[in-house]
Amino acid sequence: MTTIEQKALAYHRAGSAGKIAIEITKSVSTQEDLALAYSPGVAAPCVEIKRDPTKAYEYTAKGNLVGVITNGSAVLGLGNIGALAGKPVMEGKVVLFKKFAGIDAFDIEIDESDPDKLVDIIAALHPTFGGINLEDIKAPECFYIERKLRERLSIPVFHDDQHGTAIVVGAGMLNAIEMTGRDIATVKIVCSGAGAAAVACLELLVDLGAQRHNIFVCDSKGVLTTARNLDGEKAAWAQDTTATTLSEVMEGADVFLGVSGPGVLSQADIQRMKAHPIVFTLANPEPELRPELVREVAPDAIIATGRSDYPNQINNALCFPYLFRAALDSGASTINQEMKRACVVALADMARSDARFSKDYIVPGLLDPRLLSGVTPKIATAAWRSGVARKELVELEYADDLKDLAESLL
Amino acid sequence: MTTIEQKALAYHRAGSAGKIAIEITKSVSTQEDLALAYSPGVAAPCVEIKRDPTKAYEYTAKGNLVGVITNGSAVLGLGNIGALAGKPVMEGKVVLFKKFAGIDAFDIEIDESDPDKLVDIIAALHPTFGGINLEDIKAPECFYIERKLRERLSIPVFHDDQHGTAIVVGAGMLNAIEMTGRDIATVKIVCSGAGAAAVACLELLVDLGAQRHNIFVCDSKGVLTTARNLDGEKAAWAQDTTATTLSEVMEGADVFLGVSGPGVLSQADIQRMKAHPIVFTLANPEPELRPELVREVAPDAIIATGRSDYPNQINNALCFPYLFRAALDSGASTINQEMKRACVVALADMARSDARFSKDYIVPGLLDPRLLSGVTPKIATAAWRSGVARKELVELEYADDLKDLAESLL
Repeated sequence: MTTIEQKALAYHRAGSAGKIAIEITKSVSTQEDLALAYSPGVAAPCVEIKRDPTKAYEYTAKGNLVGVITNGSAVLGLGNIGALAGKPVMEGKVVLFKKFAGIDAFDIEIDESDPDKLVDIIAALHPTFGGINLEDIKAPECFYIERKLRERLSIPVFHDDQHGTAIVVGAGMLNAIEMTGRDIATVKIVCSGAGAAAVACLELLVDLGAQRHNIFVCDSKGVLTTARNLDGEKAAWAQDTTATTLSEVMEGADVFLGVSGPGVLSQADIQRMKAHPIVFTLANPEPELRPELVREVAPDAIIATGRSDYPNQINNALCFPYLFRAALDSGASTINQEMKRACVVALADMARSDARFSKDYIVPGLLDPRLLSGVTPKIATAAWRSGVARKELVELEYADDLKDLAESLL
Repeated sequence: MTTIEQKALAYHRAGSAGKIAIEITKSVSTQEDLALAYSPGVAAPCVEIKRDPTKAYEYTAKGNLVGVITNGSAVLGLGNIGALAGKPVMEGKVVLFKKFAGIDAFDIEIDESDPDKLVDIIAALHPTFGGINLEDIKAPECFYIERKLRERLSIPVFHDDQHGTAIVVGAGMLNAIEMTGRDIATVKIVCSGAGAAAVACLELLVDLGAQRHNIFVCDSKGVLTTARNLDGEKAAWAQDTTATTLSEVMEGADVFLGVSGPGVLSQADIQRMKAHPIVFTLANPEPELRPELVREVAPDAIIATGRSDYPNQINNALCFPYLFRAALDSGASTINQEMKRACVVALADMARSDARFSKDYIVPGLLDPRLLSGVTPKIATAAWRSGVARKELVELEYADDLKDLAESLL
């Protein structure tokens, strides 16, 4: 066992098991307090909510409460380890929601692998939460599950493994492309991996201006081509090409996007890329190719990873806390494309306007205290401008309120 | 709107909406902390739990976590107001779990009325929790739902509206019966109400020695008799009698147990009872008959209500926090009859051994700081003695540990 593994086990075991607890936010010291918090007083907010369901946001925790929900079918790089074994990750996510955005979250681990049954279960939980963050659900089922839930529910539903990664990749990519004098409309992109995160990244890059005919995707069997018998999401990315291996499509590539695993990328592959290559090796904890090895053959490369011990950490925590903060505060009924795009641009702008902006600083750091008040209001504005939220909830002092919140959290 | 209703609304609205929040229990200030709490360190406890599922109790909050779960079909006296409108009550229950026993709870409101679907949904949530407290689910479905979940799950499942009420009624009744020199085997009991709480109370009283042929149950249509066309739980309590009204069966009764609503009981009914009558008017907030009116016609009556502003408050909070505390601490796979009986006896003993023991003090007060360390160890002992828990987890210093916990909570 490595040192970090031992430390992590000790961390989770120390004191009370795990990382989270429930806190009572109101006084409950006297008999009268109890009569307000519980019977008989509690009947009054129940009656109010029955009369007007929006009052749940006034009298309960719902408005600041996100469900972090998984079935444990694709946990980290560990695969389908099941709902129970995924619990430490979900509790970790709860910690991040609280730490970065002051959002309360309950982690819910569901023992169900059938996509339709999982949709029914999660949909039935909707009164509990103000928003739902789907987590670590495997592809391709995750696409269907998220789509069905978005159709059925009028609270924000967001599969972070898809869109969270995509948004932060998008922000870093916009900056890397600008920094190297490229045009997103003409860059050749090679993507290793065809799972949930890969597909979401590519869709967002297309939304930002990348051209589908310039994008080559490889799964474990090689390039997705029209000659292969593909269906679903993979078929949508198949190219009419005779190239079959990653190495072949790497010839002349501007961008490598790795959302797969270690060992698929070689130094020779990097050498096949154009000058000033953009190399995102996001496999975690072990990247597709270590940055120092990329650097050996391409000293001018812009490199991003998922790790905190290298520059340019691409981590979902740069976006999901602020997306949900904005969605909850603005009363958004969904997290739509406009909000995601606003998050991409806000993150990219924050890095670009920083004195440290360079090939080793294309996205802000995870612990940057400016994120909450810098990114969130832009997402909230996109929400009400696109008609899914209420402007009056996030006007005037909103950025100042968030600055105060950030100070109380960090 | 009454003063208490206005105060309760203000209480729930003040500051952050609702009454509960999430608290991070470990340090998350540095990049290294985050690497332990989340990726990459968090993979280590996931792997350990995958290898040995019991490790979830060591590395996550599961072992101190109860799901407070409802579909909102029978909330307080408000009836079927739905899952969302029930949320304030569920959050109130979460507060009580924390306040009285240091147990973390998530409230889960489920939008589902079909009993089998509800069972499937709740069962699928089992990896999340160390125990499940069903709440405010209407009869008769609640009996089926609880039974099915107890069969399917190997964590404690407890429908508090049934058994919580029954246990506290049982404790008060044992003391009232002793105090009036009665024998439980011969008391005539009249019960107004045939819902979940009523049935559970009567079953527990039978378990404690009451005789079925001495028990007369009335629903809104009158006495449950074999002449009526009854099925399910109600049929089980039907008597072969020509009496049809509550007033008729009150003739010569020792005990009145009201778990129905205001207005069903008159002073004349009380006068039909034996001397030193035992009158439990538990309808909440408005009892079947106000204590001062009972007292007018039966000055020597022993009276209990569900209210905090009269003596002898029969409230579930006297038992569920300690039952779950004992079950979680002892690693109990269920909450069985032996544990419930131990709770009844422990509560009755605590009142009986108190200097205040009298007809106005037949059960301890809700805020009595001795409850946690006085009642819990006896339930834990019953758990391991009956073979559903592990003795070694609750030996030696257990009562002392609970005293320390109580001090930190109250």
